[in-house]
Amino acid sequence: MRAPGALTAHLAGIGTALPGPPVDNAALSARLGVSAAWIDHFIGTRTRHFCRDLDGGRIRMRLADLCARAAERALADAGVTADELTFLVLATATPDALMPTTAAEVADRLGADRIPAYQIQSGCSGAVQALTLATALLAAAPAAGRRPLGLVVGGDVCTKHLDVDRDFTALPPGELVNYVLFGDGAGAAVLGRGGPGRAVLTAAWHRFEGLAREPGQRLEWFGAADRDDGTPAVAEDYKAVQERVPELARAALEETLTTLGWDRGDLDYLLPPQLGGRMTARITEELTQGLGCAAVNCVADTGNNGNALVLLQLEQLLDRLGAGERAVGVAVESSKWITSGFALVGSDERGR
Amino acid sequence: MRAPGALTAHLAGIGTALPGPPVDNAALSARLGVSAAWIDHFIGTRTRHFCRDLDGGRIRMRLADLCARAAERALADAGVTADELTFLVLATATPDALMPTTAAEVADRLGADRIPAYQIQSGCSGAVQALTLATALLAAAPAAGRRPLGLVVGGDVCTKHLDVDRDFTALPPGELVNYVLFGDGAGAAVLGRGGPGRAVLTAAWHRFEGLAREPGQRLEWFGAADRDDGTPAVAEDYKAVQERVPELARAALEETLTTLGWDRGDLDYLLPPQLGGRMTARITEELTQGLGCAAVNCVADTGNNGNALVLLQLEQLLDRLGAGERAVGVAVESSKWITSGFALVGSDERGR
Repeated sequence: MRAPGALTAHLAGIGTALPGPPVDNAALSARLGVSAAWIDHFIGTRTRHFCRDLDGGRIRMRLADLCARAAERALADAGVTADELTFLVLATATPDALMPTTAAEVADRLGADRIPAYQIQSGCSGAVQALTLATALLAAAPAAGRRPLGLVVGGDVCTKHLDVDRDFTALPPGELVNYVLFGDGAGAAVLGRGGPGRAVLTAAWHRFEGLAREPGQRLEWFGAADRDDGTPAVAEDYKAVQERVPELARAALEETLTTLGWDRGDLDYLLPPQLGGRMTARITEELTQGLGCAAVNCVADTGNNGNALVLLQLEQLLDRLGAGERAVGVAVESSKWITSGFALVGSDERGR
Repeated sequence: MRAPGALTAHLAGIGTALPGPPVDNAALSARLGVSAAWIDHFIGTRTRHFCRDLDGGRIRMRLADLCARAAERALADAGVTADELTFLVLATATPDALMPTTAAEVADRLGADRIPAYQIQSGCSGAVQALTLATALLAAAPAAGRRPLGLVVGGDVCTKHLDVDRDFTALPPGELVNYVLFGDGAGAAVLGRGGPGRAVLTAAWHRFEGLAREPGQRLEWFGAADRDDGTPAVAEDYKAVQERVPELARAALEETLTTLGWDRGDLDYLLPPQLGGRMTARITEELTQGLGCAAVNCVADTGNNGNALVLLQLEQLLDRLGAGERAVGVAVESSKWITSGFALVGSDERGR
């Protein structure tokens, strides 16, 4: 098994994009027929953003739109242009199509010609998978020539599963909750081998932990032959998620600290896993006990937008992370149980 | 831009899996109402394998079944067990679900616990993307400890788009041809940093070449909200494919040879891009002109099973490749125009 944190990269810039105005619980409640108080109490997510209008269903943006916008902002933040990129890695659970990839669409929009454009299929751990991959690709880039630069993009659009015309009164709570938890969004980061950077990524790792375990989350796609086969599009085993995610998050945090030789007391910021507002608050409280560090999370305001979440957290972190300060992030994917972690140290060589 | 071929890996073992018996043109003709002679003449693909029965539509296998079977054969061929793996990379255009990934399902089936399991979303270039990634991940693995080993898997199942109940007489030829071209299948390879191996992978690269170009191929997925929106599931711009693929293939071959410093006359085997039997024969004839090398391809017998094709070719190649003999492979993905190439040298340190 590969040791976490063996490779490092400079985080040169970051950018994010959320579609349209925030949709609050009152608006959602009016459309779904569930009480806003129930959402507040049990889910704890206050707002989320959708690419599709709740009324009428008009689609305003696709994943490629969101990802290209976030990527443009990350490039601008890093002060680099698309033709300086060595590669692009995009992570998503909900690509616009199976082919072409959204990664290729984004490369086209950015004008990033003739570079490898990878697309990782993944859930909540996807952005960390992309960061991990980027550190390996940066390390493997030729020693000579200009500074290798990689663009990491993460995003999700649940629009294709947001059926606003259905009869919500007939939906069981287990399905209804998916309309409340999830949102759309994208984030992007520019990573460089060597500085300058706003922070140094000192660790990034992920691994499958689901041996002989049932998936905690299923997200289906339908083809021409099974459009009407009745399979639910989204299914969660919330009991398994609530039981297992806190314990996996704790182990991932400990492992990342141990690998880096960091003491628990050295940590300035924690980026916890984010399923929904309530659960993230609970896990954060548990994880930060005795640590004295600040938590950075956004899910209560953005909704769970999957592969965007870690990059949204990173954007918030970078605005606060001082030179020499330390942060660890943890993401847990309940699909087939993937844990992941990453760490950063603030830099003062921002170069912007 | 990263120079092709900077990294190498040993190809320790290979395995493939095709579902059910071959479906010949007579059987397809009886079901679709197109003449077998037309298929022979214009497509040139003689047989393909489907996970779904043409009559009745019963699903016999899923992508995870095929990939796990191919992977088990590759591990056995390499003489290693799943718990020796450092990582897994699976490439597909048609995962069984959006979550969990087929990569995680395959890791579970193999008993490959606690390793990173990446899934690349891709079309015909996917296996080469996975090989490229594997060389970078092997290079990035810790220097100490046991020999790093990666499992590359590629496969596709068109079953979800194989609607055997539809009225084929109403389909335009442009859609009908998709039922004739494509098939299901999977392949897998075990790669090691250092030997033993059946061959050494001396180059693997890919890149997006689709700047400002319309996609040559689209493959859609449908969510709960758009099951009935009428978008065709599969669409190809065959004119663009026929015009552009031969020229991109030629450039990819030349570039791979140049990077390795290999003369055209040094080449013993060519693995051409494979869309359909007829087109592959035409491209092969063109590419091998004046080269005096043998071509290794399988699409006329297996159908175009996407991410499996390169691994099916590699299996055939390894049975023929003598020690010191040289092979170059080229795959072109028409989705949003991705070119890719790879090269191998035969080894006599098979270690089996």
